[in-house]
Amino acid sequence: MRPAVTLVLGGARSGKSRFAESLAPAGEMGRVYVATAEPVDDEMADRIAIHRSRRGSAWRTVEAPIALAQTIKRESTPRTWLLVDCLSVWLGNLMHHDLDVGAACEALLEALAAAPGPVVLVASEVGLGIVPDNAMARAFRDHAGRLNQAVAEVAGTVFFVAAGLPVTLKGAPSPD
Amino acid sequence: MRPAVTLVLGGARSGKSRFAESLAPAGEMGRVYVATAEPVDDEMADRIAIHRSRRGSAWRTVEAPIALAQTIKRESTPRTWLLVDCLSVWLGNLMHHDLDVGAACEALLEALAAAPGPVVLVASEVGLGIVPDNAMARAFRDHAGRLNQAVAEVAGTVFFVAAGLPVTLKGAPSPD
Amino acid sequence: MRPAVTLVLGGARSGKSRFAESLAPAGEMGRVYVATAEPVDDEMADRIAIHRSRRGSAWRTVEAPIALAQTIKRESTPRTWLLVDCLSVWLGNLMHHDLDVGAACEALLEALAAAPGPVVLVASEVGLGIVPDNAMARAFRDHAGRLNQAVAEVAGTVFFVAAGLPVTLKGAPSPD
Repeated sequence: MRPAVTLVLGGARSGKSRFAESLAPAGEMGRVYVATAEPVDDEMADRIAIHRSRRGSAWRTVEAPIALAQTIKRESTPRTWLLVDCLSVWLGNLMHHDLDVGAACEALLEALAAAPGPVVLVASEVGLGIVPDNAMARAFRDHAGRLNQAVAEVAGTVFFVAAGLPVTLKGAPSPD
Repeated sequence: MRPAVTLVLGGARSGKSRFAESLAPAGEMGRVYVATAEPVDDEMADRIAIHRSRRGSAWRTVEAPIALAQTIKRESTPRTWLLVDCLSVWLGNLMHHDLDVGAACEALLEALAAAPGPVVLVASEVGLGIVPDNAMARAFRDHAGRLNQAVAEVAGTVFFVAAGLPVTLKGAPSPD
Repeated sequence: MRPAVTLVLGGARSGKSRFAESLAPAGEMGRVYVATAEPVDDEMADRIAIHRSRRGSAWRTVEAPIALAQTIKRESTPRTWLLVDCLSVWLGNLMHHDLDVGAACEALLEALAAAPGPVVLVASEVGLGIVPDNAMARAFRDHAGRLNQAVAEVAGTVFFVAAGLPVTLKGAPSPD
């Protein structure tokens, strides 16, 4: 287990990104926002722009739609907050480009285990609706659930966020 | 923050309405049920009838499929419990009639901030499944998530209900 | 309320089965795994095989795709852990074969109330996504939500599992 790894789990529009940002307060440490979203259409581009403008200049943004493990290795230092937003979009990118999901997840877990500084990861919970009709969506749901479990096992702290409010699933109580 | 505002969040058939009713005990205070559902088809009419028969004569019912803010302003008194059931259906009505969702939500938040008596609001959490295929459903999910966050911020107490059992997200522990 | 009945609620790929298994530790008591899944296609057969190989020889498996109440009556003893995995799949089987869901749920609740030994039941939470388009999926969601509420009322302990981590909804705190 890595005390410096935190997983923030939540639904769509649950306030999980905002909550995750609040875990990395401004101060003497650097802050790097690791963005996994690719602006493939206007809707996605809008979402990215909204998130980016909220963060302002307090964060340096690096893009990691695929090479997430390598980015964590390269960017993590004891004096830097890393915020990965989000794991589920990264997983979707891997599947979209038909890459080896299992190998990529292994590499990610290794990078987290070796990261010298604190890493906060945002992930979507997508398994609480009706079983999807199409096989690709079911496969995504399976991968996402397994990845969330694996990262939760490595993490020292895990939160579930609903309506902007955290429930602590593991580790320290929520910062209120 | 308004201590007298309570948000009850939950999934479909989670027991959230029943739990919300239990927060407004029978007694010397009046009880007004603010129903947002429009009986547009038989399935919806059945659901409404079931809820109404469970509540019995202990509640006065007022319909507010659209004019929710105005209804709260008109009905709230220090001696009245208001139960709004539910925010997500109201949001769907606004979208169905192509009304200004942002303005309506602003008016609702102002009405809550000014309400002289206790208000319990029920809302659905709809963001924990797979991303929906159609754009309207995604837009609804976005609006619902944002509204839930905004009401949760105003509320003094927020519960998440699953299988009829509450988890306290904010404020007082659950009444057990 | 039956202290010996435990409900483990969670989403797809949430780790709920694994967590439920951890509640029935190896020891002097027998362990019976009550499987409700029917291997109707390859995908389902694969899932069943994965679960079965994880449990290994520590569990005796009995199949109960329909006759769940009768199986609990027959198998429960004070010296046996019963693990039912899962209620939602059983409910889907009832609907698929057009059986009387209400009567079957009543019989299940009676069997739980009369069980002489501990019973752990796994169930899916499926009501936290967008309202499904088709009526059958909505009916399933309604049945599942009602069944989860009814079993939660009978149970002495209820957990909600996300990313492999339990939140206690009722009864004893989670075993950490």
